[in-house]
Amino acid sequence: MSFNHRDEHVDDRMLLVQANLDDMNPEWISFLMDKLFDAGANDVYVVPIIMKKGRPGIMLNVLIDEDRLSAMEDIIFSESTTLGLRYLHASCHRLAREFEHVETKWGELTVKVGYHAGKLVQFAPEFKECEQVAKQYGVPLKQVYEEVRLQFVKRHI
Amino acid sequence: MSFNHRDEHVDDRMLLVQANLDDMNPEWISFLMDKLFDAGANDVYVVPIIMKKGRPGIMLNVLIDEDRLSAMEDIIFSESTTLGLRYLHASCHRLAREFEHVETKWGELTVKVGYHAGKLVQFAPEFKECEQVAKQYGVPLKQVYEEVRLQFVKRHI
Amino acid sequence: MSFNHRDEHVDDRMLLVQANLDDMNPEWISFLMDKLFDAGANDVYVVPIIMKKGRPGIMLNVLIDEDRLSAMEDIIFSESTTLGLRYLHASCHRLAREFEHVETKWGELTVKVGYHAGKLVQFAPEFKECEQVAKQYGVPLKQVYEEVRLQFVKRHI
Amino acid sequence: MSFNHRDEHVDDRMLLVQANLDDMNPEWISFLMDKLFDAGANDVYVVPIIMKKGRPGIMLNVLIDEDRLSAMEDIIFSESTTLGLRYLHASCHRLAREFEHVETKWGELTVKVGYHAGKLVQFAPEFKECEQVAKQYGVPLKQVYEEVRLQFVKRHI
Amino acid sequence: MSFNHRDEHVDDRMLLVQANLDDMNPEWISFLMDKLFDAGANDVYVVPIIMKKGRPGIMLNVLIDEDRLSAMEDIIFSESTTLGLRYLHASCHRLAREFEHVETKWGELTVKVGYHAGKLVQFAPEFKECEQVAKQYGVPLKQVYEEVRLQFVKRHI
Amino acid sequence: MSFNHRDEHVDDRMLLVQANLDDMNPEWISFLMDKLFDAGANDVYVVPIIMKKGRPGIMLNVLIDEDRLSAMEDIIFSESTTLGLRYLHASCHRLAREFEHVETKWGELTVKVGYHAGKLVQFAPEFKECEQVAKQYGVPLKQVYEEVRLQFVKRHI
Repeated sequence: MSFNHRDEHVDDRMLLVQANLDDMNPEWISFLMDKLFDAGANDVYVVPIIMKKGRPGIMLNVLIDEDRLSAMEDIIFSESTTLGLRYLHASCHRLAREFEHVETKWGELTVKVGYHAGKLVQFAPEFKECEQVAKQYGVPLKQVYEEVRLQFVKRHI
Repeated sequence: MSFNHRDEHVDDRMLLVQANLDDMNPEWISFLMDKLFDAGANDVYVVPIIMKKGRPGIMLNVLIDEDRLSAMEDIIFSESTTLGLRYLHASCHRLAREFEHVETKWGELTVKVGYHAGKLVQFAPEFKECEQVAKQYGVPLKQVYEEVRLQFVKRHI
Repeated sequence: MSFNHRDEHVDDRMLLVQANLDDMNPEWISFLMDKLFDAGANDVYVVPIIMKKGRPGIMLNVLIDEDRLSAMEDIIFSESTTLGLRYLHASCHRLAREFEHVETKWGELTVKVGYHAGKLVQFAPEFKECEQVAKQYGVPLKQVYEEVRLQFVKRHI
Repeated sequence: MSFNHRDEHVDDRMLLVQANLDDMNPEWISFLMDKLFDAGANDVYVVPIIMKKGRPGIMLNVLIDEDRLSAMEDIIFSESTTLGLRYLHASCHRLAREFEHVETKWGELTVKVGYHAGKLVQFAPEFKECEQVAKQYGVPLKQVYEEVRLQFVKRHI
Repeated sequence: MSFNHRDEHVDDRMLLVQANLDDMNPEWISFLMDKLFDAGANDVYVVPIIMKKGRPGIMLNVLIDEDRLSAMEDIIFSESTTLGLRYLHASCHRLAREFEHVETKWGELTVKVGYHAGKLVQFAPEFKECEQVAKQYGVPLKQVYEEVRLQFVKRHI
Repeated sequence: MSFNHRDEHVDDRMLLVQANLDDMNPEWISFLMDKLFDAGANDVYVVPIIMKKGRPGIMLNVLIDEDRLSAMEDIIFSESTTLGLRYLHASCHRLAREFEHVETKWGELTVKVGYHAGKLVQFAPEFKECEQVAKQYGVPLKQVYEEVRLQFVKRHI
């Protein structure tokens, strides 16, 4: 079964994979997260936790399609120090997503838009583009965001 | 199916709804949490997390009855910036709960009591009442708690 | 059903038990965690969270075999202040584990080794032994780890 | 010495007061924070920490004018469980602040504006007013923010 | 200069030593903390932080008398992986402390008492003794605390 | 005054600059951190905190030379949403640092070495080089670290 990610849908075949890391060099985490994203993880995030004997640890969370479990496990076991992991069944509800383009003083920029039940509920400037503009033109990033939001809101009022 | 929340019970029809928020003004969180509680959430809490590209984020957690999923989703999509959410099936085990009243120097105050397998295992002064007394009489909150606990313990020895 | 924990396996009969604690003396947490480990919990960890009214709280997590639920609940209700808990079904994937011994300047020390699909992917000096050596010989703990790892790696190249 | 808080200034007579709390009911924290704000603290915030024996604790931070130290200490010792506290000397650099008013579909709303070296660098809708509008008119809080920001940005372009 | 720690006092010769650890096995933290306490640190605690490139790290905090700086630095550089540390001058305000003993059903137990300006403001059962009783008599730790607090409060009313 | 950063030294002219951010899009944090590093900050890190009204916030920390205060403030006020910041005087103790090169199966790689009082106390493979090797050769990052450490330790025994 496959989804058109442009349409709002619920996907019941997701897994939340978790591993508690208490003896791992934290420098390796970002490398591991990137590798999991590259291999198709829907989301990856870490949570600071307190483990056995009061040790500060890190709980890795990887949200994936069931079909990818084996590939993700290979990465986690190769790139982390864990001797085990656990997974829980989850359902994901994703909004319909579209990209709109708005004209700004730095050229055309993209806005990611989310629809729930056909109604526009979210919109967010594309981070990478705004970051690129901020660097290229030497303007504060928040000013770029503000301009993109302004142009988007003006069109949709 | 409905439960008498005064009796100890296990409710297998619960959902834990989660959304990771990395581009949202944190000022809006308490408003969102209040709104979810008002709409019948059993519990709402947030967890500081680290997301893609090392961004500090906030994971929203909402524990609800399965029947309320749609109403809760409407609130989350309206009041947060997320483009998706996930949910996991959960069972809740709730103790039998009763309210007792104890006499204190500031009048009668309430204690919430929890029973597990018929045995008193928890008791807690009602926060709002104690806070009210502390403000009205200008006494430390911890002193109010101490007095309420003393009166409760003396009765139950 | 029982597992030979020396072999790599997936155990689908696990529960992740969670309780949010917002009115409990944090001093009691380590006592509670020890007691849960002693009673057979596979893992116990806590997560700092933000609860109702912005209160800093602690989420207790206990990973257990389904059969132990009742015993674990007794401990949680006795030793914490919670009026309820929740649990989610989980699967645990555990690597094959073996213990090897390496010769060091402070005597023979143990390395825990993990195998995934028959391939050595993890190895870790035993913390307690290294800690004991560090104390007895007055050397830095990290130096003991380094030595144990060196001896292990040299053998496996 | 007193400052006109409407002008940008540096105040070198500040103290950052800290207390580590590991045996205190977290329910009392918000009451304590409110009381410190009422007594004139410039800022109050708490940090989740890990203390002796791996206990999860809370570090209270109170930023105050040196002259208020004694009054703040009285509150901290009365309302928390700590047997000691520490303080560090700090300097505060505060932007010039002004309030502007913008016309919206829900009436006039306030924007807090910050100037650094005479240049407008910050602006933020007043949370309480926006929250009030969101409740009264049944609109999402983020929509109120968006409208206030739009009106402000349009005026300042 | 030396203090009688039984009297309330302010000590202006304290240092808060901090080191950010982002490439260190978290297993070593508790060993390091114990060693710092053994060497005379007044307090040791760690804070979960996010470092360069979004790496989860741990900030070590050690509160010490100025005279101990060199000894503490030796431990930190030996037992952690840091290439540097920083310290800030701090003042510690410590309450007058006394130990009282109360009679309980499990024998005499100790209460640590704190006085501010001659007034009793804090009291806390000794954790280690209560833990010992809980283990020896098989009673919940919180019940031991409750009993000790009850006996103390009854005497001081 | 300037330091040869290859020699162990204490620098007493440092500032720890802090700003609490509770109304800022967390997406902007990594951009801000990069910009502060580029402008010469010695270290930048963020701490999850709980602010007024229980809002989850982020405390920005920037460790800098006193001379850079004004330049850093310009960046913080431009790229964040804060209306103020604070700074505390700090001393930094930095180890003598050298770079050594070791031969591995993937070519020569660098190890950063730290000396305290003339004694080698720290060594760490260069993250960027190891990451590059891991990507280029398709080997686990931890295996690259292990190899570099092995070669370094063998030489220094």
